[in-house]
Amino acid sequence: MTDTRYDVIAIGNAVVDVIASCEEGLIDELSLNRGGMTLIDEARADELYDAMPPARELSGGSAANTLAGLSTLGLQCAFIGQVADDQLGKVFRHDMRATGIDFDTPARDGEPATGRVLIFVTPDGERTMNTFLGAGQFLPAEALDEDLIASAGILYLEGYLWDPEEPRRAMRRAIEVAREAGRKVAFTASESFVIERHGDDFRAMIDDGLIDILFVNESELATLTGEDDFETGFNAVAPKVPVLVATRSAKGAVASAHGERAVTAAAPVAKVVDTTGAGDQFAAGFLSGYAKGEGLEVCLKRGAIAAAEVIAHYGPRPEADMKALMAERL
Amino acid sequence: MTDTRYDVIAIGNAVVDVIASCEEGLIDELSLNRGGMTLIDEARADELYDAMPPARELSGGSAANTLAGLSTLGLQCAFIGQVADDQLGKVFRHDMRATGIDFDTPARDGEPATGRVLIFVTPDGERTMNTFLGAGQFLPAEALDEDLIASAGILYLEGYLWDPEEPRRAMRRAIEVAREAGRKVAFTASESFVIERHGDDFRAMIDDGLIDILFVNESELATLTGEDDFETGFNAVAPKVPVLVATRSAKGAVASAHGERAVTAAAPVAKVVDTTGAGDQFAAGFLSGYAKGEGLEVCLKRGAIAAAEVIAHYGPRPEADMKALMAERL
Repeated sequence: MTDTRYDVIAIGNAVVDVIASCEEGLIDELSLNRGGMTLIDEARADELYDAMPPARELSGGSAANTLAGLSTLGLQCAFIGQVADDQLGKVFRHDMRATGIDFDTPARDGEPATGRVLIFVTPDGERTMNTFLGAGQFLPAEALDEDLIASAGILYLEGYLWDPEEPRRAMRRAIEVAREAGRKVAFTASESFVIERHGDDFRAMIDDGLIDILFVNESELATLTGEDDFETGFNAVAPKVPVLVATRSAKGAVASAHGERAVTAAAPVAKVVDTTGAGDQFAAGFLSGYAKGEGLEVCLKRGAIAAAEVIAHYGPRPEADMKALMAERL
Repeated sequence: MTDTRYDVIAIGNAVVDVIASCEEGLIDELSLNRGGMTLIDEARADELYDAMPPARELSGGSAANTLAGLSTLGLQCAFIGQVADDQLGKVFRHDMRATGIDFDTPARDGEPATGRVLIFVTPDGERTMNTFLGAGQFLPAEALDEDLIASAGILYLEGYLWDPEEPRRAMRRAIEVAREAGRKVAFTASESFVIERHGDDFRAMIDDGLIDILFVNESELATLTGEDDFETGFNAVAPKVPVLVATRSAKGAVASAHGERAVTAAAPVAKVVDTTGAGDQFAAGFLSGYAKGEGLEVCLKRGAIAAAEVIAHYGPRPEADMKALMAERL
């Protein structure tokens, strides 16, 4: 195995988050899937945007957010994802590069526009996401720089992007490239509906040993295993993946690695402002420790600290000096 | 005089703010005008954006921000300004309408794009603004809905927009329309450089009695009057305008109206995060009282409370429930 040029390379949605605070009642009024992520078409995106309170725009995307966290923590990162040649695409690319992430996938001409996620944040800080994938759903396998993928220690993939056909094919190819190069493959399940639609794929990948590090939350684990009981579900998957990380919101997180098991409590937060990015930053914190060879418990704690930082403000990416925060809180 | 359809109608820049936190050193490195507003062309905007840390986008524009504050405080508002037919133009229009402001100026086809302001916020919370006016500089006098202007109790104009020729002509026409309809004309000087370039215009308008309510800060007052001493400058202008409001940052504000004079201290702020919009929201708080016939001191206090709210978070428009905040703090 040659030296790594990047610590982590990710393939994910290239989207801009449009984030608004809203009253609880608006969620029902617009028939939104409270706390979840729903894929929507452009007409529904326009309809929801018309009904949305004033908003702020911040670059998002699950894997892209995780990379932003990793980059802030000092890791070398690269991103592959599809934006359109438009203003929001330029915003997304700027924010990736300004965070120190290499992102060279060419913009796609014509329609559809760069993807966007309309996020309604209720007074309890819970986010309800409505995603128009836009250009992102047309990420072609040809956009993969295979040398780049082979040069990264970890290939990180997001389940959200498993839904559209072209990116799914690209990600399958990327897994082959990474494994041939002897790299680790990390996968985040992203959302239960993805597992409902593609659970057979995921279970086969797990059984075939294609996934080295798997991130799930409680409901994704339940959907993946068909087990409502957390412990039963966790113990069913743990023997099949070298590293399993299960986040449990306010209840903290559990991980297993090669038979070892560790838990962490959630890190304290003065006030939950916006839970957008909590899982993404947990993954960033965890992987930043994993890439440095830290023990499982330290990796979990780093995840909890990163998640606590991001839910204390609007937006899915860290705003604090994360290296200093880790040094202070660990 | 007929009944008013709107409390306030404003003509102003239609721009999206691109706001990033940055280290102190970057201001010098990029040769920025610390704490000020600098007009830039598109090439310089691209150059500065490339050098900018990750950012968030929020709708801005001085008069538009003031309207957002007024609307949140329950006043009926309409806006006239020029966006392009692009994504940022749609963001700006959405945020105005979602705040309850009528904004029907048609988007302009082709180049340039919707204006944007690159805002670098240093650790002390001070904002350094770099404005590419974009489509905004081409607001034509023909875009004015004269019936609309005649129907509003107050016409509010921003000095920033006095610089480009077409909007200046539009604003001169709007003043005529408002005065013919017996309405009040409010004007914010915006920034010293505007007065350096157009001070003769402004002094003539003041002398001709075209301005009923004038908002200035200390340095604008000094540039307008040529007097470095605040009291001397204030007393030189006060007899010439029915209402004069001078903001003094942390030192509070002073106002005079028809010979009466009042002062207010700055309202307390736990931590200054981003001073963007401080003057705009001061004007909103003040005018919200003025429109209701409140006394001068109450108007000033309302201005101070609104300014304190906006500098405690990123972005130039209120995020709190402003009616509740006024009820609580007055």
